[in-house]
Amino acid sequence: MSVAYHPEEIIAIVSPEFQNGSTSELIRSIASLSTARPGDLSFLGNPKYKAKVANTAASIVLVPLNFVREPATDQLFLYVANPSTALAKVCSRIEQSLWPKPPPSIHSTASVDPTATIASTATIGPLCVVEGNVEIGEGSYLQGHIFVGHHTKIGRNCWIMPGCIISTACELGHRVRLQSGVVVGSDGFGYEFVAGHHEKVPQVGNVVVGNDVEVGANTTIDRARFSHTIIGEGTKVDNLVQIGHNVVIGRHCILCAQVGVSGSTTIEDYVILGGQVGVGGHITIARGTKAGGQTGIVNDTNPGTYLNGTPAISYVLERRLQVLHQRLPELFKRVSTLEGNPE
Amino acid sequence: MSVAYHPEEIIAIVSPEFQNGSTSELIRSIASLSTARPGDLSFLGNPKYKAKVANTAASIVLVPLNFVREPATDQLFLYVANPSTALAKVCSRIEQSLWPKPPPSIHSTASVDPTATIASTATIGPLCVVEGNVEIGEGSYLQGHIFVGHHTKIGRNCWIMPGCIISTACELGHRVRLQSGVVVGSDGFGYEFVAGHHEKVPQVGNVVVGNDVEVGANTTIDRARFSHTIIGEGTKVDNLVQIGHNVVIGRHCILCAQVGVSGSTTIEDYVILGGQVGVGGHITIARGTKAGGQTGIVNDTNPGTYLNGTPAISYVLERRLQVLHQRLPELFKRVSTLEGNPE
Amino acid sequence: MSVAYHPEEIIAIVSPEFQNGSTSELIRSIASLSTARPGDLSFLGNPKYKAKVANTAASIVLVPLNFVREPATDQLFLYVANPSTALAKVCSRIEQSLWPKPPPSIHSTASVDPTATIASTATIGPLCVVEGNVEIGEGSYLQGHIFVGHHTKIGRNCWIMPGCIISTACELGHRVRLQSGVVVGSDGFGYEFVAGHHEKVPQVGNVVVGNDVEVGANTTIDRARFSHTIIGEGTKVDNLVQIGHNVVIGRHCILCAQVGVSGSTTIEDYVILGGQVGVGGHITIARGTKAGGQTGIVNDTNPGTYLNGTPAISYVLERRLQVLHQRLPELFKRVSTLEGNPE
Repeated sequence: MSVAYHPEEIIAIVSPEFQNGSTSELIRSIASLSTARPGDLSFLGNPKYKAKVANTAASIVLVPLNFVREPATDQLFLYVANPSTALAKVCSRIEQSLWPKPPPSIHSTASVDPTATIASTATIGPLCVVEGNVEIGEGSYLQGHIFVGHHTKIGRNCWIMPGCIISTACELGHRVRLQSGVVVGSDGFGYEFVAGHHEKVPQVGNVVVGNDVEVGANTTIDRARFSHTIIGEGTKVDNLVQIGHNVVIGRHCILCAQVGVSGSTTIEDYVILGGQVGVGGHITIARGTKAGGQTGIVNDTNPGTYLNGTPAISYVLERRLQVLHQRLPELFKRVSTLEGNPE
Repeated sequence: MSVAYHPEEIIAIVSPEFQNGSTSELIRSIASLSTARPGDLSFLGNPKYKAKVANTAASIVLVPLNFVREPATDQLFLYVANPSTALAKVCSRIEQSLWPKPPPSIHSTASVDPTATIASTATIGPLCVVEGNVEIGEGSYLQGHIFVGHHTKIGRNCWIMPGCIISTACELGHRVRLQSGVVVGSDGFGYEFVAGHHEKVPQVGNVVVGNDVEVGANTTIDRARFSHTIIGEGTKVDNLVQIGHNVVIGRHCILCAQVGVSGSTTIEDYVILGGQVGVGGHITIARGTKAGGQTGIVNDTNPGTYLNGTPAISYVLERRLQVLHQRLPELFKRVSTLEGNPE
Repeated sequence: MSVAYHPEEIIAIVSPEFQNGSTSELIRSIASLSTARPGDLSFLGNPKYKAKVANTAASIVLVPLNFVREPATDQLFLYVANPSTALAKVCSRIEQSLWPKPPPSIHSTASVDPTATIASTATIGPLCVVEGNVEIGEGSYLQGHIFVGHHTKIGRNCWIMPGCIISTACELGHRVRLQSGVVVGSDGFGYEFVAGHHEKVPQVGNVVVGNDVEVGANTTIDRARFSHTIIGEGTKVDNLVQIGHNVVIGRHCILCAQVGVSGSTTIEDYVILGGQVGVGGHITIARGTKAGGQTGIVNDTNPGTYLNGTPAISYVLERRLQVLHQRLPELFKRVSTLEGNPE
């Protein structure tokens, strides 16, 4: 990771309640207890792994306040209320080292239309294309190889990673993060069947992405037929997800990788969809619905339900049916026996 | 959407049979009856929603000829034979405003090989790469950040959106539209297992895309091992679809998002595949076959059948089996009762 | 394909044991026996098709040593031990013609940081971005429109196709081939739910790709939370696959298109996953496991097992259950009859 922290720097980042031992190593990486080597920082995030601390070669270990054991030679224990939270602080510092915020600038190889409004603290990286009448807010960072279509608005402190395409007249809120290769504002998939062929229905709406949304690599979000495709504030979308035209997604939802949401469907707040879930069109996924991986949802759901299977039913019923399904050979035999024909 | 139409312009676009009322608003957007605000145009596409016209705030409403109601103050009704068709005319006009055809040109930042043949009315946008011996036809538009491999031919009036990659020696017909991030001509996935490892089988065929085909964002179409992977005229492919090597797709098919088609499979004309459908290799999907979302097809199909489930069976049978599947707990109880062991 | 080989050149490439007949045609393409036309080379790869040789119009046919038939007029038979292997030699030569290794160079439109180390025999194509402290090995080829984040290392003789993004601090071995649009090193999908919203867990690990790995178009591979996401030597990954953070994939595996692997899962050597397979998180897929298309694997697997269905069970059991599932209508009738209520 090309970082190196003196133990005193780690102590300053973590602010432990107390400490025990010492190490002469610079911390260059993070590792689990069992794979750590000298120069690594590790942590006891789950008490069930506490025996692994005895054998870890990590130079620094983050441990909970009630942890009882002496560090090895050249090893430092830092006692904290929550080792996972303390680790996150270290990771945040590393993140800042790995991706230092570049100084505000417009790279000489970027192609920026003179009618675009770029905030003075924004950064436009190499080989970006910014078309006319675009607005880019304070502190936002277009990393490189990014295309922003005309009349699109990007809020403050967004981070758009390489290869993203944000088409015409779309809107991104503040602190939006798009991983590489995201397409925002592709045409919705709408045709009318006329005289033996499919005629395109023009897709002239846009996509509106709320504050604090993150979108995963190579995910696609279609523009509305008219009006808006909407991703609500704080929602997190994983890689290779498809979001159809006129979909409205609420706040603080989680859409795992390869989910597909068909057009005109509404997903309310706090919905969680597992990997490869498919959602039909023109339905409503109620607040707090959860669906396991590969579930196929074709009807409205009730709030807070946990679904599984295709077509989706309650997780508990689905699991029970799976067990009975696997007992079908036995059931066929029992019926044969009842019929007087034991196999 | 950054458009504004005077009511007289809308009347000119729509050519209503007659009209009633008037509005002083400029039309800036389109909305459904229930969400429309002043400045919006709305439409009564389905008679069952006619009661909603009474409460809409839309400034202009497209209504069918037999619609009976007076417009509100500052509201204009336009009477047309088919409100949806009339709306499409307005959308087409907006589409032309949003994406005006740029004047023919080759952007100064594009990298075009001198042996490429670019028609005089074609447009090559910023940061495109066009390799040697490429041919690009009259009126075609490469929007930006596009890579065209050597010896590839692109027909007339195509629109290639940002981030597309069209690899070596492929062929696109006329009026082809590729949404952003499409890959045409990636290598087919072919290996031979030799001495404990997979040896690559060279993939030296190409991809041939017919006239009037549209391909969705981030979809991938592999080149043939040899000969051609073919997408037939008028076929529409949604986002994130995978089309394997040597696949032959007929005319006027619909492939919804995240469909996957394995290598060497033939899909005949007018086939419709729902979202996330998987199609096995070396099979034939007969003319007019339809498959519901997430269906898994591993065998040849009969013309005009409607399939569902994995493995795919007829939709009617699949729905019946789903009902019986959910009655398995009852069936197990009934058999126990017959055995003299009621639960 | 824009190639043309004199028959003598084909003979030199194939080195047949013996030959029969002759042709005046230049060989410009490869085709199957039934679709070949003059100027095509064809081959008898499977003895069951030997009758097709009689009617083929191919100018050259690769046939096995024991094949008995006279060539037609203007037709040449080349007798070889293994026609498929001989064909692969011809395809390799065509591949070299289609994609000749460009001379080592850094294109004038590429943006290369002065701290990057580019081997003297490497080629950096048009409009690539290479950030600081990157290392690119001998003979490697970045074709165009590629983004390489700082501190990333790319080994020898890699071929990175247009539109790929390799993020910060990742490592590629030797002879790695990335098809177009691949994203290596996107953030893992990790959040903690705090006070009603999802807080991002920084993802500061990297991705390590072994020697001889090939990755398909628009596939995404997430960087580890910390430590490494690993793709083992010789593993082949198809298009539109999602590989989550901290996944460890062994050597010589095959992951077909649209597979999704959730975070922290281990896939051992020689595993084969069919198209659209979903794999849950934090599990181990044992050496040599095979899974059919659309299988959903949520538990550890045993070595060498062949799985199918969701949730995954043995292929043989799954097929048996499918048959019984389709007999449910019959079973319900039989139980009704036993109950004295024949339908």
